[in-house]
Amino acid sequence: MLQHTVQTCIHSDTQLKYLLQLADNALILSHRNSQWCGHGPILEQDIALTNIALDQLGQARNLYQYAALLLTEKTGITTTEDQLAYLRDTGEFKNCLLAELPNGDWGQTVMRNFLISSYQFFLYQELQYSNDGQLKAIADKSIKEITYHVRWSADWVVRLGDGTAESHARMVQALELLWAYTGEMLEPCDYELPFIAKQSSFIKAAWEAKIAAVLAEANLIHPTNDWMQSGGKKGIHTEHFGYLLAEMQFLQRAYPGLEW
Amino acid sequence: MLQHTVQTCIHSDTQLKYLLQLADNALILSHRNSQWCGHGPILEQDIALTNIALDQLGQARNLYQYAALLLTEKTGITTTEDQLAYLRDTGEFKNCLLAELPNGDWGQTVMRNFLISSYQFFLYQELQYSNDGQLKAIADKSIKEITYHVRWSADWVVRLGDGTAESHARMVQALELLWAYTGEMLEPCDYELPFIAKQSSFIKAAWEAKIAAVLAEANLIHPTNDWMQSGGKKGIHTEHFGYLLAEMQFLQRAYPGLEW
Repeated sequence: MLQHTVQTCIHSDTQLKYLLQLADNALILSHRNSQWCGHGPILEQDIALTNIALDQLGQARNLYQYAALLLTEKTGITTTEDQLAYLRDTGEFKNCLLAELPNGDWGQTVMRNFLISSYQFFLYQELQYSNDGQLKAIADKSIKEITYHVRWSADWVVRLGDGTAESHARMVQALELLWAYTGEMLEPCDYELPFIAKQSSFIKAAWEAKIAAVLAEANLIHPTNDWMQSGGKKGIHTEHFGYLLAEMQFLQRAYPGLEW
Repeated sequence: MLQHTVQTCIHSDTQLKYLLQLADNALILSHRNSQWCGHGPILEQDIALTNIALDQLGQARNLYQYAALLLTEKTGITTTEDQLAYLRDTGEFKNCLLAELPNGDWGQTVMRNFLISSYQFFLYQELQYSNDGQLKAIADKSIKEITYHVRWSADWVVRLGDGTAESHARMVQALELLWAYTGEMLEPCDYELPFIAKQSSFIKAAWEAKIAAVLAEANLIHPTNDWMQSGGKKGIHTEHFGYLLAEMQFLQRAYPGLEW
């Protein structure tokens, strides 16, 4: 596990928690998407989703590297991106529950990507104006990729939502399952407020407008339930998350310090 | 991971490999059975299978403790049962492939238990005559439990095989799936020969007679295919096994040396 001093430093530092939350969302969504590798419905889309997973992994790496640098400076203990990804346990991960849910079918997977990527699109647009130069640079780089992720996933939501009776029914089911997990992304928690308080209502409104437009085009009825799940940002995760970490972290846990 | 010296000692010691193979079979079957805990078809049987898993875990512990004692004496490095269960990687585990396959449905689970427990029954009867006093004592203790495991699983094979059309069809499917994994149990590999060479043909014949009798009672046609999977005894496992270990070993990997 992470050194106690490093854990304590993260716990008391709003900026680090904020960076890790951004990184964890990117990593966990990337990991779920990577589970489709070799299992996609058609070759081209298998590769498309694998590429998206790689983009998200790259975004996670940039954010972990930045957090690791800050941690090393603050604690004097050399900390690496790998340690942050592989040596934290469930309670220390800050990703939204939406990112960690199992993939389900292809429809559920593209719907999840659409809901999260759309949020990231408006969020990273705001982060491009961050007065943290490093975060701004990461946002500049990421936004191009995320723009494509939104377009790709929205296309799929429309294609399946407005497709056959079977594909439509599956998208209705996917939306119903995932909807209650969307609220957590949109409500800033304590450590997010210093960085995003002013922009959060704009991000929320922009996200809602985008979702409404695409769902309408996809012939999907916009959900009306507004009771929302939460917990991930505070380290309280679903039962699926421990299994995800056990698998994802196995190599570094079994062979500490392993390198290519 | 295990200390290199300990690994080398295991690798060159027939007795240790034999003990670990017995222990690994008990542990991995126990772990699979434990995954049913809380998911059994009816409460009483949920508890029955959980108890069987606990029996098998106890057998594994006795064997690991004995192996750990021998290792500590031979290498001078203190080795514990937990290290043997939790700090070896896939290639070092010697259990038969049959023990590590996913549970499938209840029918597949009871069929697997019947196939393995019946083998263990005749094997441990022979081990009761071992000239290794410690192994003899473990066999004496285990045989009572295994006798019950055979009876319980055989009852279920008959009940479902000779049950409804649906339950019969499922047992046919389970037997077809599992059959090709039974041969590995019955063919002694190099490190087993010094301990069981003379008895192995008797064990095989006794197992075959038992299986044939119960399948006949269960109205299930005895499989005729004799092409057999193998590899587990040599550390070459199915794709399922890495996931099983990742989950089973997570705590000791994440929190090395953790104790209750």
